[in-house]
Amino acid sequence: MPRFKITLEYDGTDLCGWQKQDTSPSVYQYLEEAIFKLSGERPQIFVAGRTDAGVHALGQVAHFDLERELGTENVRRGINSLIETGQIAVINAEIVDQEFHARFSAKKRHYLYRILNRPSPSPLDRNRIWHLSDKLDHHSMNEASKVLIGTHDFTSFRTVECQAESPVKTLSTLSVERLDDEIHIKASAQSFLHHMVRNIVGSLKLVGIGKWRAQDLKNALEARDRGHAGPTAPAQGLYLTKVDYS
Amino acid sequence: MPRFKITLEYDGTDLCGWQKQDTSPSVYQYLEEAIFKLSGERPQIFVAGRTDAGVHALGQVAHFDLERELGTENVRRGINSLIETGQIAVINAEIVDQEFHARFSAKKRHYLYRILNRPSPSPLDRNRIWHLSDKLDHHSMNEASKVLIGTHDFTSFRTVECQAESPVKTLSTLSVERLDDEIHIKASAQSFLHHMVRNIVGSLKLVGIGKWRAQDLKNALEARDRGHAGPTAPAQGLYLTKVDYS
Repeated sequence: MPRFKITLEYDGTDLCGWQKQDTSPSVYQYLEEAIFKLSGERPQIFVAGRTDAGVHALGQVAHFDLERELGTENVRRGINSLIETGQIAVINAEIVDQEFHARFSAKKRHYLYRILNRPSPSPLDRNRIWHLSDKLDHHSMNEASKVLIGTHDFTSFRTVECQAESPVKTLSTLSVERLDDEIHIKASAQSFLHHMVRNIVGSLKLVGIGKWRAQDLKNALEARDRGHAGPTAPAQGLYLTKVDYS
Repeated sequence: MPRFKITLEYDGTDLCGWQKQDTSPSVYQYLEEAIFKLSGERPQIFVAGRTDAGVHALGQVAHFDLERELGTENVRRGINSLIETGQIAVINAEIVDQEFHARFSAKKRHYLYRILNRPSPSPLDRNRIWHLSDKLDHHSMNEASKVLIGTHDFTSFRTVECQAESPVKTLSTLSVERLDDEIHIKASAQSFLHHMVRNIVGSLKLVGIGKWRAQDLKNALEARDRGHAGPTAPAQGLYLTKVDYS
């Protein structure tokens, strides 16, 4: 019974996120239907990061087991041709051993948050970036971001609905850089709390517009209270770019 | 009576192109409505390049005259807030003198054609790139492209509906380069024939897959017959990136 590891790209715009829901289509539902049409089976699908509605993925990872012996190319091409809307695609499919688990074997998750920092919005990126017309000071944002790197109690940056047992996480990378009109915020950790990247971005924006200094970000972290950090940045700017396995 | 020069970005996906039509919305119609709501006037709008349905723009240029004295920031912001779908945005607005003409003063038009050259399609770029899964030899394509640079009769690369008086155009730049999984074809000229870039791309693809050599491209050019060149590449990969004025 082969275990398939698939790497996914998706446009989260019209999806309710990863999780199966009754209301609107999820990545899970599209994949489950495609796998069923391809194999006649409905295996449980496990994922590295359960993205929210509107969040995109360039390198999401999932796994599932099939009774049928299907080639990896059949799985990749088959799923892609069966998801006709083109919102989701399998970029890579491989057979892994039974010890592999998309969620529990993940060593590091990498996220990118894109901000468009110019007076006018971008029609071509309109569901793929957060448009902020006020000039952001990316140097201050990058300097302040260092306050959050390392192991901390991130209670101030998790949504009240977060179900993680512990609010302590280790942020291994957090950086802010400018590429012309875009500001890219990169965050890496073994795991994140719910809304953690978007809540960090919302706080870094306060630094970027000069309302906050690095010390305010530090105070927000130390308060261990969601009410002390900035608002949640919109989903559309967030991308799960890559998941590392050993 | 001030003349406004505006620089536009648009997502051509759900637009029938620049030209006003009765069937589906065009860039012209969106702009005309927004300008009317802003100023109460319906000036004629002139454009640098009349793009087709599905073709995108990063730096399209248009001009129009208004009786009302409106500031350039009011024009930029006003049009952007009035085009609620977000498909079209004014990136820049300035007042120019009466000699300026978006079409006739243009010295050079720059186009980019994007090909995604990997096994799987891209959900995030699904209406913004031409997906070709067979590996393309971009070196051969770039080498062959030199055959078309300069002043030639481009009859083989224009659509039969093209209304240009002369098929002779001067292609000042044509280059093919690879950036990871993408192939970028750049073309610049003072002016182009209808479908010229897409027909050139369709022929360069034949070189890329090894079906044609540079000599075949040369033969196609010299045949001065549309039937001798490759098929038209799809609109979704094409971007009008910039228009130069003296």
